[in-house]
Amino acid sequence: MSHPMFERHRELLSKAVSAIDARSYWSAYPDSYKAYGDNAIDAGREAFEAYRGAQFYLDQPGVIGRGGDEISPYGLPLNISYPRCSDDALIAAAKTAMLGWSKASSDTRAGVLIEALHRLNLASPEMAQAAMHTTGQAFTLAFQMAGPHAQERGLEAIATAWREMKHIPSAVRWERVNTTHPNTAPQSVIEKKFSIAPRGVALVIGCSTLPNWSAYPGLFASLVTGNGVIVKPHQNAILPLAITVAAIRQTLKEGGFDPNLVSLLVDGATLAVTRDLATKSDIRIIDYTGNADFGMWLESNARQAVVFTQKSSVNCVVVESTNDYKGMLRNLAFGASVFSGQLATRSQTILVANEGVRTPEGVVSPEQLGRDLSFAIGRLLDDSARAAEVLGAIQLPATIVALETLQEAAVVAGNILRPSVTAHHPQWPAANLRTPLLLKATVKDGDVFGVEHIGPISFLVQSPTVSASFAITERIARDTGSLNLSLYSINPVVQTLAEEVALRSGMMLSVNLTGTLLFNPLAAFSDFHATGANPAANACQIDSHFVSARFTIGETRTQL
Amino acid sequence: MSHPMFERHRELLSKAVSAIDARSYWSAYPDSYKAYGDNAIDAGREAFEAYRGAQFYLDQPGVIGRGGDEISPYGLPLNISYPRCSDDALIAAAKTAMLGWSKASSDTRAGVLIEALHRLNLASPEMAQAAMHTTGQAFTLAFQMAGPHAQERGLEAIATAWREMKHIPSAVRWERVNTTHPNTAPQSVIEKKFSIAPRGVALVIGCSTLPNWSAYPGLFASLVTGNGVIVKPHQNAILPLAITVAAIRQTLKEGGFDPNLVSLLVDGATLAVTRDLATKSDIRIIDYTGNADFGMWLESNARQAVVFTQKSSVNCVVVESTNDYKGMLRNLAFGASVFSGQLATRSQTILVANEGVRTPEGVVSPEQLGRDLSFAIGRLLDDSARAAEVLGAIQLPATIVALETLQEAAVVAGNILRPSVTAHHPQWPAANLRTPLLLKATVKDGDVFGVEHIGPISFLVQSPTVSASFAITERIARDTGSLNLSLYSINPVVQTLAEEVALRSGMMLSVNLTGTLLFNPLAAFSDFHATGANPAANACQIDSHFVSARFTIGETRTQL
Repeated sequence: MSHPMFERHRELLSKAVSAIDARSYWSAYPDSYKAYGDNAIDAGREAFEAYRGAQFYLDQPGVIGRGGDEISPYGLPLNISYPRCSDDALIAAAKTAMLGWSKASSDTRAGVLIEALHRLNLASPEMAQAAMHTTGQAFTLAFQMAGPHAQERGLEAIATAWREMKHIPSAVRWERVNTTHPNTAPQSVIEKKFSIAPRGVALVIGCSTLPNWSAYPGLFASLVTGNGVIVKPHQNAILPLAITVAAIRQTLKEGGFDPNLVSLLVDGATLAVTRDLATKSDIRIIDYTGNADFGMWLESNARQAVVFTQKSSVNCVVVESTNDYKGMLRNLAFGASVFSGQLATRSQTILVANEGVRTPEGVVSPEQLGRDLSFAIGRLLDDSARAAEVLGAIQLPATIVALETLQEAAVVAGNILRPSVTAHHPQWPAANLRTPLLLKATVKDGDVFGVEHIGPISFLVQSPTVSASFAITERIARDTGSLNLSLYSINPVVQTLAEEVALRSGMMLSVNLTGTLLFNPLAAFSDFHATGANPAANACQIDSHFVSARFTIGETRTQL
Repeated sequence: MSHPMFERHRELLSKAVSAIDARSYWSAYPDSYKAYGDNAIDAGREAFEAYRGAQFYLDQPGVIGRGGDEISPYGLPLNISYPRCSDDALIAAAKTAMLGWSKASSDTRAGVLIEALHRLNLASPEMAQAAMHTTGQAFTLAFQMAGPHAQERGLEAIATAWREMKHIPSAVRWERVNTTHPNTAPQSVIEKKFSIAPRGVALVIGCSTLPNWSAYPGLFASLVTGNGVIVKPHQNAILPLAITVAAIRQTLKEGGFDPNLVSLLVDGATLAVTRDLATKSDIRIIDYTGNADFGMWLESNARQAVVFTQKSSVNCVVVESTNDYKGMLRNLAFGASVFSGQLATRSQTILVANEGVRTPEGVVSPEQLGRDLSFAIGRLLDDSARAAEVLGAIQLPATIVALETLQEAAVVAGNILRPSVTAHHPQWPAANLRTPLLLKATVKDGDVFGVEHIGPISFLVQSPTVSASFAITERIARDTGSLNLSLYSINPVVQTLAEEVALRSGMMLSVNLTGTLLFNPLAAFSDFHATGANPAANACQIDSHFVSARFTIGETRTQL
């Protein structure tokens, strides 16, 4: 008998499976808030207001206190308190919940989880507020990245895992014929049963800037393959994942399953607690997004678990030639500004050869490119309302300190192309806004432009040749890690060279992106995020490896 | 343009892909030598004779000498010498060869490799001799396990990897429509190209008792996904893998590819050499079959690589009730005898509760079961020709020493149910043959029956209850590792209990196997070998995880 939640979402699942095979444009959830009702923004704000200054409700076991002290980068007091639970109690409860969940069919599990995504989708307007006031993203970005785009990544994970699980039949009759005497009875007849066995309790360690977007692939992939999941959000971005966990728990309950399958672990900033939990023998899967140091620590020490990490990334742009110089400048200026450089996918380091950039209007020298890019950033951020919507707010005081330190040194060195200045948010006067700092550099400054700078910091690096630019990107990918490489070139030879560099270094290559629409480098059901082939991440999201490592296959053979 | 080798084998590949989805009986290569021509045995022996006392031809780079000193367990002098090559030279040559190979399509790579399997299949009779005179297996087992059954596992690996790679389209056009104004032009159009990128050079570390059967899954899975492979055979079983490597190299050459994609590394027994090679930064995939100690060392130390290990396994039988007592005894006697207990999949430890075994003829006490099993072993090995064909030869002197030590202690302890005696091979007087040693034990002897004994050693353990028997098997699986669990029970409650134990401990469950046909526990395209859920192995052979970890996905996005 088919579960009603599977029946409700069967068609969407089927479309999602077709989409991951086709990988052309498909969207499951609209990413414009206008599709969510005329008063979506007000309704979302109202729902969000109810969380402020209140105790977030989660009926989890093993409560030992309350915690959580998120601060809105926009200066809005939050004062939300969450239950703090014993991790051992959450592990034990997840193991109990897995007994029933892992026996449900792949169809049922997928149906229940897509129902949870459906409810989260309806809650996207309030999720946008939750993400905005924890990460510092502007409203639109927060809406998309914590709402529909994250939900689509969850659905993509479910569809990819479901496709893998459906490759395995649940029961077959195996008859070996007698080849010597083919008309006699089979030599042996065996009834075989196959089942999907979960690997164990999973731990999802969230990040501060993209809490949902980063967590949903691992979260939903682990759940749909039968595992329980403990979600440990970053202490600065708890609310988006708390709302997520609450929605899944409620859906599980209504679907007839034990809600303790998924739980929220709020435990302050103590790294030692996470280290202790991540190495417990019952934790069998870990998904982590965050800084490289802790990611590498997990890979080396959480040996009892399958560990997926998304770590630091320095992404480069190689500028060689373009048919649309202004469009290129708009894209580079937007990339240097959007969410104040706090996304792992943003481009930080722009490389241009001494010979400059060929354009339809003639060759642009590296010096001129620096002036033009500064000017393009200025134009983009001219209007303070638009500047606020592009820049968002800076989440952490440490980011501002690092930015100012770098700028002070650059003043002394005399390599500032465009200084970073304080900007003011028209609605949120307490928000920390800084315009992008654009620095010029030479190939000798690799120890500066080749490491990750979180915040609105970009480098324009002058290199001897285009080949040297590629060599630099390749070294950064190998040593530091790079998710993607951008290229501006209309020369097929240079394009081919870039493809080879990107392929062998594990970077996604984007060619000739112009304008401001394509700042978001990833479309669910189409793009693959990360490769696992350089230190930026140890796996791709979302491919069959990412999902199939989360379950094992049980087999029973009975002779008939 | 399609590669001719792909065209030649397109249909077989398509059937193999259907077979891995259906998982009912299908065979690609006949496993009776009678299908290989009337004089297959003679022809195979003749081809094998040509290898003896000669230099094995392999035109590999970086030759630094010659090596190899395999000894036939049947006493036949071999004196085969192989080129010894610098591992750095083999790595460099493999990396060069990968440039062209990884750019070929998945179809082409699959076609070339299936052609290599086809040639290996034609060579099965000589491969049988090579396997027999290195592993000690009797002719029929050697023929099947080093010939058609290994080849089918190679084909299964190719088909599974090909299915995963074909999920990824090579090029798509991505058009995002303008949802606000749907009749206008798309907001953005991107051309996307996807490609399969190999992970790097792979290392296959062979085992001594099933050189081909254990190596082919990883070898062919790595090759078909674009990687180069260095095959390092066990020093006692080089020839089967040398013939394999030579056949693949010849096929690559004829298919238009650099044969150095795959090479043989012969380097004696020095573990230090393997340790050094396995931790080189260029080695990105390792497949290992062998003892648990080195397997765990690889898992802990070869951190730069994706490591797949098949390690020690203690497999148990729980006997509760049966409808066919004699059929059960035949199966247990055969299991205790086949290839003298030198296969990792064999059952070593038989557990029976104090209350005995329910049979149609009444309850059989544990004591009576011990006598009946001893007698069944005796009947099976009565005839010396049949005994030789069942037992094969013992490969290593150390196995005999361990057997004799255990037997001497058992004489003192008085727990021998059936002693091991020397048997004589009618054709090969120098072969080392020993009949099975059957020991009785109690639950207190877990440190003896719960560890792996290579050789013809079985334990009949008397436990308080059936539940206690299951608890023992579960502890062994968790602490030592178990590939499979056998059950004899006609009680549905006990069967369900066994299924739950097997599923949560990562063992394949076999129920009520009788007779002698089903000693081979694995059918390619149907059974999954190992689960990765207990220490016997860290992955399943062959599922999508096993293949998809071997490649990454490259992507290029160009704005149109």
